[in-house]
Amino acid sequence: TSRAQSDPLPSWNEGAAKQSIIDFVRSVTDESSQSFVKPDDRIAVFDNDGTLWCEQPMYTQILFAMDQARAAVQKHPNYKQREIFQKPIKDDPSGLIAGGARASMELIASAHEEMTTDEFEKVVEDWLQKSKHPRFKTPFTQLLYVPMLEVLTYLRANGFKTYIVSGGGIEFMRPWTEKAYGIPPEQIIGSNCLLKYKSDAEHPSIIRTSTIEFIDDGDNKPVAIEKIIGRRPIVAGGNSDGDRAMLEWTTTGPGKRLAILVHHTDQQREYAYDRDSKIGHLDKALQQADAHKWTVVDVKKDWKRVFPFQQ
Amino acid sequence: TSRAQSDPLPSWNEGAAKQSIIDFVRSVTDESSQSFVKPDDRIAVFDNDGTLWCEQPMYTQILFAMDQARAAVQKHPNYKQREIFQKPIKDDPSGLIAGGARASMELIASAHEEMTTDEFEKVVEDWLQKSKHPRFKTPFTQLLYVPMLEVLTYLRANGFKTYIVSGGGIEFMRPWTEKAYGIPPEQIIGSNCLLKYKSDAEHPSIIRTSTIEFIDDGDNKPVAIEKIIGRRPIVAGGNSDGDRAMLEWTTTGPGKRLAILVHHTDQQREYAYDRDSKIGHLDKALQQADAHKWTVVDVKKDWKRVFPFQQ
Repeated sequence: TSRAQSDPLPSWNEGAAKQSIIDFVRSVTDESSQSFVKPDDRIAVFDNDGTLWCEQPMYTQILFAMDQARAAVQKHPNYKQREIFQKPIKDDPSGLIAGGARASMELIASAHEEMTTDEFEKVVEDWLQKSKHPRFKTPFTQLLYVPMLEVLTYLRANGFKTYIVSGGGIEFMRPWTEKAYGIPPEQIIGSNCLLKYKSDAEHPSIIRTSTIEFIDDGDNKPVAIEKIIGRRPIVAGGNSDGDRAMLEWTTTGPGKRLAILVHHTDQQREYAYDRDSKIGHLDKALQQADAHKWTVVDVKKDWKRVFPFQQ
Repeated sequence: TSRAQSDPLPSWNEGAAKQSIIDFVRSVTDESSQSFVKPDDRIAVFDNDGTLWCEQPMYTQILFAMDQARAAVQKHPNYKQREIFQKPIKDDPSGLIAGGARASMELIASAHEEMTTDEFEKVVEDWLQKSKHPRFKTPFTQLLYVPMLEVLTYLRANGFKTYIVSGGGIEFMRPWTEKAYGIPPEQIIGSNCLLKYKSDAEHPSIIRTSTIEFIDDGDNKPVAIEKIIGRRPIVAGGNSDGDRAMLEWTTTGPGKRLAILVHHTDQQREYAYDRDSKIGHLDKALQQADAHKWTVVDVKKDWKRVFPFQQ
């Protein structure tokens, strides 16, 4: 345990990736260093799917959307006629896989039109409680990357404020992200459907609509960071081309910067995918990594453990 | 000074308003009380114009918008033809006064189309440096309500996270709100124009557009709170019907809640206005105050001082 206490990243193998994270944190927190950054400006942003938790064989939100669509059609038989429900009824997720964050956001928004945000929170909690990953047969919230949890904890112990900046729905993440990652609701940034306030002297509510307001992916990630945080992060973590702009925006600012790009290379303990994958497509960001000195993590080589249940 | 230390609200006269604030804070921070609220859930939201700083004879943002419009027309003579610049060219703010937050947001967005967010920040800083209030002849950032600054400090000293939720532009507030109120950029919620990311390997930027994305007023205030904070506040402060929904959303939640409604009644030290005012129109919220047990502040009666320069 004295080893564990002195090593903030015990699930990382010794190597360039681990060292670059430790060197960066030491440098920006050392008051005598020219690279010192005052605590208020220690902002760290992380993608969620494929960066903090598993996104294969498809985004968890796609599986959730499929189940919600089928339940909605059972509840409202007239939904059977609507185009958006056709493929989910046939158990076919191809439209959602090809359509990125927008497609699953739209399906969920259509399935839960007019629901209050409180009711939706319960739907997410119930679904997560009863659903299991098709390969690992565990709840999805156990498919967190232990080495990345260590990075979050290490950063916070050094005065960083950690945020999630994900293409996933804000309201799909908040019910579980605080417990899973130690990140409070106000530090969860994501996609969202348009919400409406329903005034009432005793029980007002906030209602979901079927209109998508914002998709927090690609170039919209730095935009969301500017809009909601209003500071340029000095640390960013991602794993796909959807995170490329966020990593670029983070590392082109002045002073020392850290970008972590997770490259999934371990088919045995997890999944191996990059250029040819529709989920977590990784091509341009990998090409850009060298020029920007991004820390590319080779999962097979750099991580001692992947998931909590693997020793 | 021992008096000042024991009294967290020295600029408030003794009375029901002051007492309700102190009683509330004591009650939710007392671990032995049934009303105890854990620190993470101590969220407090405040309107800005007319609640934390002066909004008369018109919103500061209107004066800023007028100046920006005139400067834009000088720089781009072809703007003279555009409808949106007609009244500002004639030094006529009536369209902006009648049009609420949206009108001044649109004018500013049109005047500064294609500007980066960094450049815009400098424009705001420069303008605030050289501009003075027409009646008080001081910089606008000195027209802060001292009693409300004390409330912000008192809440934070008791573990509250303080937010601004304003109809004003996010990017118009952030350059000065941290210094003025001690509220960091990530706790400033407001209206905004659509932003675009401009990718570049060395100097990417975030660009303003002339499209308005969100107006944070009226029913949109609780919506923005849900979207960005994701927790229901237990304290809200406002002064107009634009804050009515936010106060309602805050005080209809379970447990003890506090809403502060500032009623401007002091023409001598400041301004007196409510039902008949286009700026800071206050009617419905005042009608609703009793039923919800909102703390209505009578500026003339409840505040010992209004502005920092008044002793």
